[in-house]
Amino acid sequence: MNTLEAIAKRRSIRQYKPGEISRENIEILLKAAMSAPTARNCQEWEFVVVRDKNMFKKMMEIHPYARMLEHADCAIVVCGNTQREHAPGYWIADCGAATQNILLAATELGIGSVWLGVYPNQERMDGLSRLFKLPAHIKPLNIISFGIPAEQPTEVNRFDPAKIHYELW
Amino acid sequence: MNTLEAIAKRRSIRQYKPGEISRENIEILLKAAMSAPTARNCQEWEFVVVRDKNMFKKMMEIHPYARMLEHADCAIVVCGNTQREHAPGYWIADCGAATQNILLAATELGIGSVWLGVYPNQERMDGLSRLFKLPAHIKPLNIISFGIPAEQPTEVNRFDPAKIHYELW
Repeated sequence: MNTLEAIAKRRSIRQYKPGEISRENIEILLKAAMSAPTARNCQEWEFVVVRDKNMFKKMMEIHPYARMLEHADCAIVVCGNTQREHAPGYWIADCGAATQNILLAATELGIGSVWLGVYPNQERMDGLSRLFKLPAHIKPLNIISFGIPAEQPTEVNRFDPAKIHYELW
Repeated sequence: MNTLEAIAKRRSIRQYKPGEISRENIEILLKAAMSAPTARNCQEWEFVVVRDKNMFKKMMEIHPYARMLEHADCAIVVCGNTQREHAPGYWIADCGAATQNILLAATELGIGSVWLGVYPNQERMDGLSRLFKLPAHIKPLNIISFGIPAEQPTEVNRFDPAKIHYELW
């Protein structure tokens, strides 16, 4: 599928069938993430790949909207390294762009995925930092949950001309 | 080109040839932006589309790394609406994801683009807010500059296994 199709087709997939995502495909997702731009090309991202079901259980205790992990095959915690970013605060949008690359690559590969927000929720950040033993300079932006899709939501058109301003607000 | 190709091919394009980006293509870019996910589907983005060369001059005075606007055909200022976001601070990563969709759609369409960081640089944010008369709750994340590409940077491989952690940090 071409890029515009993938962008339109990408939806949050929370229902999964049994089945494994290959290690090769996870590497494709991570390569996509690391192809995103970053301020001054600092590449201040870090990724924790989780497949251990016990870790999923603990993540569900920390994140109130992570129930789909019960049937997920894999998760990636996208983090920013605040010691590597161009200046304080750049990691958030940069890791957001990297996350979007992962979601689009997953769409292309037929993998279901959903972005679960963590930053700026301090409780979720603290919980995940403890669980994954993240150093203080590593900040979790989100959890991405992956699985073989058991639902196929239709495309939605969110285009809203009211959000477009010409030359001035 | 398929999504994985576009993700790999996307590079920052700062040199442009004369030529116009059609209004239809700008609409495709904005539709791509508005296809990104947002926390709780708040869609808290706003876009200022700029084509006026006088505005480009003023933007170059505000942003120290925006010299490519001299030959750009169009720019989009991607903004977050802090009155619409799920909770304070979510707009940054959400608008980062929307920006990545724009950059990938531009790659697909053969349009050169580059992301110029604005947030969290207060001086640039204040300057653009004044220039575009943004209300206080509208925060500029970046400027994206667009033009007909006059350079074709080769793909780079930024894949770094050291950034991948399994199960724990």
